[in-house]
Amino acid sequence: MPNKQIQSRASPEIFGEPVAGGGLLNRRVFLAGGALLASTAAARDARADSNSVGDDSPFSMTTPGKVFQGYGVPAVPEKPIQRTVLQPYGDLGPGAGVAMTPLESLEGTITPNGLHFERSHNGRPTIDPEAHRFLIHGLVKRPLKFTIESLLRYPMMTRTCFIECAGNSFFNSNLFPEPMQVPVGMIHGLVSGAEWTGVPLNILLDEAGLDSKGKWILAEGADAAGMSRSVPIEKALDDAIIAFYQNGERLRGEQGYPMRLLLPGFEGNMSVKWLRRIKVTAGPTYTKDETSKYSDLMPDGTARLFTFTMGIKSTITRPATGVVMYGPGLYEISGLAWSGHGSVTRVDVSADGGKSWAEAALGEPILPMALTRFRIPWRWDGTPTILQSRATDDKGNTQLRRAVWSAQYAAGELYHCNAIQTWGIGRNGEVSNVYI
Amino acid sequence: MPNKQIQSRASPEIFGEPVAGGGLLNRRVFLAGGALLASTAAARDARADSNSVGDDSPFSMTTPGKVFQGYGVPAVPEKPIQRTVLQPYGDLGPGAGVAMTPLESLEGTITPNGLHFERSHNGRPTIDPEAHRFLIHGLVKRPLKFTIESLLRYPMMTRTCFIECAGNSFFNSNLFPEPMQVPVGMIHGLVSGAEWTGVPLNILLDEAGLDSKGKWILAEGADAAGMSRSVPIEKALDDAIIAFYQNGERLRGEQGYPMRLLLPGFEGNMSVKWLRRIKVTAGPTYTKDETSKYSDLMPDGTARLFTFTMGIKSTITRPATGVVMYGPGLYEISGLAWSGHGSVTRVDVSADGGKSWAEAALGEPILPMALTRFRIPWRWDGTPTILQSRATDDKGNTQLRRAVWSAQYAAGELYHCNAIQTWGIGRNGEVSNVYI
Repeated sequence: MPNKQIQSRASPEIFGEPVAGGGLLNRRVFLAGGALLASTAAARDARADSNSVGDDSPFSMTTPGKVFQGYGVPAVPEKPIQRTVLQPYGDLGPGAGVAMTPLESLEGTITPNGLHFERSHNGRPTIDPEAHRFLIHGLVKRPLKFTIESLLRYPMMTRTCFIECAGNSFFNSNLFPEPMQVPVGMIHGLVSGAEWTGVPLNILLDEAGLDSKGKWILAEGADAAGMSRSVPIEKALDDAIIAFYQNGERLRGEQGYPMRLLLPGFEGNMSVKWLRRIKVTAGPTYTKDETSKYSDLMPDGTARLFTFTMGIKSTITRPATGVVMYGPGLYEISGLAWSGHGSVTRVDVSADGGKSWAEAALGEPILPMALTRFRIPWRWDGTPTILQSRATDDKGNTQLRRAVWSAQYAAGELYHCNAIQTWGIGRNGEVSNVYI
Repeated sequence: MPNKQIQSRASPEIFGEPVAGGGLLNRRVFLAGGALLASTAAARDARADSNSVGDDSPFSMTTPGKVFQGYGVPAVPEKPIQRTVLQPYGDLGPGAGVAMTPLESLEGTITPNGLHFERSHNGRPTIDPEAHRFLIHGLVKRPLKFTIESLLRYPMMTRTCFIECAGNSFFNSNLFPEPMQVPVGMIHGLVSGAEWTGVPLNILLDEAGLDSKGKWILAEGADAAGMSRSVPIEKALDDAIIAFYQNGERLRGEQGYPMRLLLPGFEGNMSVKWLRRIKVTAGPTYTKDETSKYSDLMPDGTARLFTFTMGIKSTITRPATGVVMYGPGLYEISGLAWSGHGSVTRVDVSADGGKSWAEAALGEPILPMALTRFRIPWRWDGTPTILQSRATDDKGNTQLRRAVWSAQYAAGELYHCNAIQTWGIGRNGEVSNVYI
């Protein structure tokens, strides 16, 4: 039974007829900016009974505020928003762990540095920037060894992109036959977005002089796990960056201070943190980090190596697991989409379990290999509902239903899961993670 | 006399002839990505004497790293980067102050939330988000009073823009007849860039129903200064946002938690923080904050009110005051440009005090009313040099020489200074703030 208290006063005529099942409305309803728009409960609740704010002398207006800070911190009154830290991390060894971005509490496309996800294989090392050296060697004409100070004097470039762990969304993968009821940040929070600045790697490789036999590079970190990955030379010469700055400031410790490799669109651990050397090689090195891990379990019992590019993916972040709906009425569905192949061109949303779809509005600018925010208005009628989002990129890639994605791999596969995420909404308004 | 130790090995042929006086090189030199590029000292210094990184078992590789954190903090080894806090702030009253962004230590275009500049008129208030109410009243059909919770359910939009205090760059203004030798962040650091998310104000005004006599709004903050500004209704209906999120997370206390007005391109204090009410009015209210302050002193003795839009501006952030050059050789000049009128279309750089100019490369995406990073390669010959940058926007606005800008105002004028900034480089490599 509709709860009168939270019904919107806005009439259906204002929003037009639904454009897909389950009450999805035209994405332009929220873009028009001239229409009379009322969110579900707010309109009725907001009717002021007087022209006064109420308390005309709140404490904050009668008492001088606090002194300023050299480096600010999150607002105190807000419930502290934290990454979810899992360390140790299963049986992956001491020090291994993750800190997951709380996507359910964030908006927009930039992740603040303090909440950018972290995946490390033996903790967060402390590196002395004065003592740190970076070596380029192997199949090069002139091996080069750099101090941080000298690298900071090279020309730089800035770009915004996502980094996503290959193991992101493992709670939607074949590792978990039953859906886990955890917040969206614990399911998909091994992806974050930031603006990175650093030295294009091709400048340094040119400086060293590539041997014609050099077709791959080995990138090695200075952490206790000695994280090492093989990267095709084409990627290294294309858009790889040696990053020193994240969202304007020098890298945080957990993001690779004093320097990391950044490979836009490639699985996260290839953007090697605490980078100490790049060795140019004739072929891949087959390191422990690309053979025993970060390889895909196939139905025929083999493991597929070198799935570099993170696939097209999306998730609705609001409403999502952990949220209880206010009741029937108008809502904005908000979520994130991204693709390691290029730019997101379209996100479709379904409110009837995939029977019908409506196109969401995409936030601009839409940047390649970067998080894109999508939004679509929706009128929930209070009945059980199945919500999904399906993203498409400019290379024509789109997301698969979970069952179709799952059938490509063996049981236990946990990497590169980009299947469609489904949220179920019960009659009581509770949102849950469901498999369909 | 050139210092051999820091000369670049790169020959002039590689970079081509200078494109302007003082050794400025074609901006595409650093964009080509295929050329053999050597920064000034790095090339020679980097020649490796062996194929080893040096210390093959640094402490960080033999010792497990630290545990993860729910909310990360800046890297410990780096010299702490802080805002410059000036509080109290001249004779502007107890609690008044600024915290300035250290532009000299940052790169890219996003300012991390902890370093976004702060200007407050009576300290940083503490607001209880449960008790806070937001009122829309005055010349409206239906006065509305909102809780934060209800506002968070309205449709949102995300945009990246700068906020700049009207008093930014006062160390380059008529208030200081002699140039102050302080870091660039203390001269121009009352500007920062961020991605903001919130509810478009026009949705809420439509909800309230504007009276046809309503031509202005009064926006009032809940701080102890009761910061209040008048805003033309056209701006309120155009691109004004009630912001709740900054760079992905909820607003920080010093940025207006739990909610602020955001007026892209307008002088900073109009983006009223700790927003408690908007009153629709027939004309401007002439508050203390737009009459006794934030007005321009004109040569005829009058004060000009309502200079809303922040002008086209730029500054080189590296090299800049406080920096000592490494010696003659190749450098990258890096800086920021922005305009409250629209998008930056061009930044020219001079290395001979304005006699000749060369076009810098602009970082993408170039967004309206947002910080734009510019870069240009430059070979310094070790002689005294005068560096300048001059930005132009898509409305045809460009920066004036300081003397020309200054002549428009009376002595003591400190607001809206967007004159060209000049850095002088001495034979000893020291960079200073100079007036020419």
